[in-house]
Amino acid sequence: MLRRILFLGFLAMLLLAMVAGAWAAAPDPTGAATLKADPGKAVDYVWVLVCGFLVMFMQAGFACVESGFCRAKNVTNLMTKNLLDFVVGSLAFWAVGFGIIMGTDWGGLIGSSKFFLAGDSYDVETYLSFFWQLVFAATAATIVSGAVAERLKFKAYLVYSAVICLFIYPVYAHWVWGSGWLSKLPFGLGHLDFAGSGVVHAVGGFVGLAGAIVLGPRYGKFGKDGKPRAIPGHSISLAALGTFILWFGWFGFNPGSTFSAHQLRISVIAVNTTMCAASASLTALLLVLGKTGKYDLGMALNGALAGLVAVTAPCAWISSWAAVVIGIVAGFLVVGGVYFLEALKIDDPVGAVSVHGFNGVWGLLAVGIFADGTYGNYATKAPFVEGLLFGGAGAGQFMAQLIGAVVVIAWAFGCGLILFKVLDAVLGVRVDPHEELQGLDIVEHGTPGYPEFYITRS
Amino acid sequence: MLRRILFLGFLAMLLLAMVAGAWAAAPDPTGAATLKADPGKAVDYVWVLVCGFLVMFMQAGFACVESGFCRAKNVTNLMTKNLLDFVVGSLAFWAVGFGIIMGTDWGGLIGSSKFFLAGDSYDVETYLSFFWQLVFAATAATIVSGAVAERLKFKAYLVYSAVICLFIYPVYAHWVWGSGWLSKLPFGLGHLDFAGSGVVHAVGGFVGLAGAIVLGPRYGKFGKDGKPRAIPGHSISLAALGTFILWFGWFGFNPGSTFSAHQLRISVIAVNTTMCAASASLTALLLVLGKTGKYDLGMALNGALAGLVAVTAPCAWISSWAAVVIGIVAGFLVVGGVYFLEALKIDDPVGAVSVHGFNGVWGLLAVGIFADGTYGNYATKAPFVEGLLFGGAGAGQFMAQLIGAVVVIAWAFGCGLILFKVLDAVLGVRVDPHEELQGLDIVEHGTPGYPEFYITRS
Amino acid sequence: MLRRILFLGFLAMLLLAMVAGAWAAAPDPTGAATLKADPGKAVDYVWVLVCGFLVMFMQAGFACVESGFCRAKNVTNLMTKNLLDFVVGSLAFWAVGFGIIMGTDWGGLIGSSKFFLAGDSYDVETYLSFFWQLVFAATAATIVSGAVAERLKFKAYLVYSAVICLFIYPVYAHWVWGSGWLSKLPFGLGHLDFAGSGVVHAVGGFVGLAGAIVLGPRYGKFGKDGKPRAIPGHSISLAALGTFILWFGWFGFNPGSTFSAHQLRISVIAVNTTMCAASASLTALLLVLGKTGKYDLGMALNGALAGLVAVTAPCAWISSWAAVVIGIVAGFLVVGGVYFLEALKIDDPVGAVSVHGFNGVWGLLAVGIFADGTYGNYATKAPFVEGLLFGGAGAGQFMAQLIGAVVVIAWAFGCGLILFKVLDAVLGVRVDPHEELQGLDIVEHGTPGYPEFYITRS
Repeated sequence: MLRRILFLGFLAMLLLAMVAGAWAAAPDPTGAATLKADPGKAVDYVWVLVCGFLVMFMQAGFACVESGFCRAKNVTNLMTKNLLDFVVGSLAFWAVGFGIIMGTDWGGLIGSSKFFLAGDSYDVETYLSFFWQLVFAATAATIVSGAVAERLKFKAYLVYSAVICLFIYPVYAHWVWGSGWLSKLPFGLGHLDFAGSGVVHAVGGFVGLAGAIVLGPRYGKFGKDGKPRAIPGHSISLAALGTFILWFGWFGFNPGSTFSAHQLRISVIAVNTTMCAASASLTALLLVLGKTGKYDLGMALNGALAGLVAVTAPCAWISSWAAVVIGIVAGFLVVGGVYFLEALKIDDPVGAVSVHGFNGVWGLLAVGIFADGTYGNYATKAPFVEGLLFGGAGAGQFMAQLIGAVVVIAWAFGCGLILFKVLDAVLGVRVDPHEELQGLDIVEHGTPGYPEFYITRS
Repeated sequence: MLRRILFLGFLAMLLLAMVAGAWAAAPDPTGAATLKADPGKAVDYVWVLVCGFLVMFMQAGFACVESGFCRAKNVTNLMTKNLLDFVVGSLAFWAVGFGIIMGTDWGGLIGSSKFFLAGDSYDVETYLSFFWQLVFAATAATIVSGAVAERLKFKAYLVYSAVICLFIYPVYAHWVWGSGWLSKLPFGLGHLDFAGSGVVHAVGGFVGLAGAIVLGPRYGKFGKDGKPRAIPGHSISLAALGTFILWFGWFGFNPGSTFSAHQLRISVIAVNTTMCAASASLTALLLVLGKTGKYDLGMALNGALAGLVAVTAPCAWISSWAAVVIGIVAGFLVVGGVYFLEALKIDDPVGAVSVHGFNGVWGLLAVGIFADGTYGNYATKAPFVEGLLFGGAGAGQFMAQLIGAVVVIAWAFGCGLILFKVLDAVLGVRVDPHEELQGLDIVEHGTPGYPEFYITRS
Repeated sequence: MLRRILFLGFLAMLLLAMVAGAWAAAPDPTGAATLKADPGKAVDYVWVLVCGFLVMFMQAGFACVESGFCRAKNVTNLMTKNLLDFVVGSLAFWAVGFGIIMGTDWGGLIGSSKFFLAGDSYDVETYLSFFWQLVFAATAATIVSGAVAERLKFKAYLVYSAVICLFIYPVYAHWVWGSGWLSKLPFGLGHLDFAGSGVVHAVGGFVGLAGAIVLGPRYGKFGKDGKPRAIPGHSISLAALGTFILWFGWFGFNPGSTFSAHQLRISVIAVNTTMCAASASLTALLLVLGKTGKYDLGMALNGALAGLVAVTAPCAWISSWAAVVIGIVAGFLVVGGVYFLEALKIDDPVGAVSVHGFNGVWGLLAVGIFADGTYGNYATKAPFVEGLLFGGAGAGQFMAQLIGAVVVIAWAFGCGLILFKVLDAVLGVRVDPHEELQGLDIVEHGTPGYPEFYITRS
């Protein structure tokens, strides 16, 4: 049934695209005219594409982190999810999502053209923009996977992947990056989010929170006394490798968001990105050390990721000392967030909500605090951005950031709640208890992750 | 004996290179003159090199996919093969192979200079071209490894690696990319293969098919009733990571094949590459789901790779909807191909023949069908390329593609058959049955892959 | 206690940075003026940043190689070390180290400004330079980790990581790359080290040697008869993947060291890098084959790395045949080095001293032998570099290289010895015997690497 719908939907989309493609003339599919008009485009394209490749590679990082932090009995399931959200998300984003972000604006709410990259979208500039937006949308999609790990039906995950890339992510991204209403708030320079602490990470994190709540905790996560129990991941080396890959990929995510190599500010962005990750990781390590006396690798890894998330919005508008300070706060937030969710009996197996949700919001606010007035925004032609600590415009900017933070939480959590509730009513979202105990690999996929190794069941 | 020959051959090559190096003047080893003549070269070099690095990184992807899909008892062997084909292949390609592709043409059949990069090859342009061609040759070489996995003597693999990079690959690549006869076929614009669906993937796939046939199936692959039995891979996480790495690397493979950043078409190529992979992966997943009711990760991974292979030839000449359609066909082909080979009792442990062979050929034909007349070929100065669905020149182009497809199958399969038959006669290609049962790691390499883990033997 | 010092030091650093930041005007934090003065900077920034990202990714490679070559019971510890040396090293290098390398020179001995990137360091050029130097410093830091693996207290490693990035590495790097005294030796063109065979690898290797000596061998490494025993690594696939990642990352390390895309010589550098790795890997494989009859993957992997290290200094000044020859020597050196250290009863679990120390020194000497007079040094405006085999200036250059080689050994080994001796006196460097037997993961980190797998204890 689901398959039939997927197949037919897919077919319908294709037909539409072919028809639409026949209608309109293609402005510059070779790129010759675009290059002639601006010879500097060659290096800009190299920059944007290479950075986009790095962002795409973050899919591998998320897959490894999530699989490493979960149990061996679900590793096939987790890898399939991480592959298929990119696969389904790409098709959904191509069909609809991109048009919602970057199509002709309707009242600041939604874009309404460029679907299927059809018609006059057959243009090197549009394709470049599509590629960039696609890898960002796919990042938001894959973040959720961690929060709902080890207990979600695969079928429901396929539908979720389509919906977030069709609608939830693109609408909010349009509001911030597609000249939508949030970008035009009458405070400061409007809501600003350089590379997506809010657009990508908070959206992913809070949809994930909704998913984790609707699903409920994994069997065994909370004891009869209500106390949380650690469910250790099956491969710390896989999780660590994944984190390194994500850190590497983030150098595409943040500096690439200038969308131009002619903004030499990219060197500042790269430095801020890595310094914030470092200070957040060290902070998280030391906090857990103070509490448990152990050097906790899991928290150091999540600390690094938290710093990367937090610096994503402000990375272009701050200098290195601010990145370090933002990272320290991120380290506290990620550790506190994990304990906080456990206290609420919410089970987020990999810490995705703390890392991406809470720190995504922190990143938005950090723009309104630390932006130091040395840099604007190339793409939107915004003048120099100032936060609370710098200049008189700071209060307005902070207000714009605060509004965006509230909106992203409400939108992502709200949409996520509706989506997972509807999915639960229609398909059921949670696997059967015996399947959960046995692991999802056998029942859903027929393929154990490590068939030759003796593995204890937990 | 073999070692002595390898050593002496190696020494002879070096002496030759040094002598040759002393003969000729080096045209532009610093690159200053080249840059002065065309200041745009700086960004072109960055583009080509970075893309080349990504292609080289695909070696890691192939190593992980192949190891993950095979058994733990052979993982040291598989990793050694994947390292050494790059190592031996690089030396062989440096000594001879590159000169065969890019050296002075002899009658459209073979190149005949630039061996050892000696003499006037000490030039930035020649070195750049060498680097690019090297990573492509090494890709073809490593594809075969998967088809002959878990039963080939390592010694034979070393010789194979040299031969494919010395001769088999370079000769065919010369025909298509070195102004050889296929590129000058009197149909359409001659045989066209943008980034190597045929040159790289079909060559690797059909040499692999020959190897798999000469070797015969692994012990236990086919039951006494003749029915194929699944031999599950030892690490699904390794295989999945490898696929992500390959997908990432393919963004070097395809867009980089413009060999110029001044072709802004690179954005279109990047989009087509990823869309075809997505649609092929989803198609393969759904096909197996329809058959078995399971979400098969192995097939989804191979589906993605099949889409990447299929789009490699046409990626520059199509728009996104065609990429999606080509991917759907690729998904059918990879699933069908796996069943077809099993029906023929051919054992291809990782599906290399289906992924690279069958889909490589499909990619060649796809050029002749979907090329939409919006783009030519920068390197060869070919005008706009048209396939059957677009314009009158399509029939001729399709014919040129068909001829190339037949030729690549005949050449690769023929050379592969001769090579493995000769190797079998001289060295023996198959390990002893007890070694195969025990795993190749102990006997050939003396190092088990996971010495501390309890592993079941299968 | 240690934590308190770390915390307070950290706080002090931050305050200093903020104060300093308030003092001075920022020359060009947006980069607009820099780009206007030289529009070619756009492509240079892309080149340097992308190469820097690749170098950063080598952290993942080192983590995988080291973990793969060690035992499962220490994998959490090894991954934590590999993460935290980057984290702590980044903060230390930001606070102090970078200023020592690139700050205002004091008598050829040390730099003395740009600490915390404060004040007028808020400039795109300075940040770019910082990013580049940071990833190199972090590489030196992480090399040591392998030599001291499986027995060092984590606390001591944290302090070590800070010290090498604060002082040991930056001082020597200043001498060679920061217009220090070694770069001005009155022989040849002064001591030359293109991408850091000496500055990065020999420093890391010889500090590691000191650490390995101070720590003593792991329990069980040498039998009662004094003979070395092999302690096999727990995951050959992880080690192999790590090596591929390192090879990939080295394409940033070496070609990126032009610090400019306008040096088309980058194509030559890329080719030399890969050819040297190939010939070293094959040489190492064949040497062990001749001795044991086995195709030893560990040695082939280390051979490739040895070749990469050896070519790092000369890569810009040689042609491909010299790279191949340098690689052959590197292959002998890495195999010989491993046996030599075992004969001295020094336990270097992953071969870091052979790979990075001995071959780092070999790379320095190779400049003085093989530099062929075709290329100079863009950054330092040095004219064409000549070694012993080419031209009359070769003897002087060789002398300069020899002096640098002696100095780097003395400096790195000396500083390392003092550091680890002091650490031993203050904190103790070696874990308790029962902890070493049980593995460091439980006691230090509370997290086993693979909690669900049955693992034999060795």
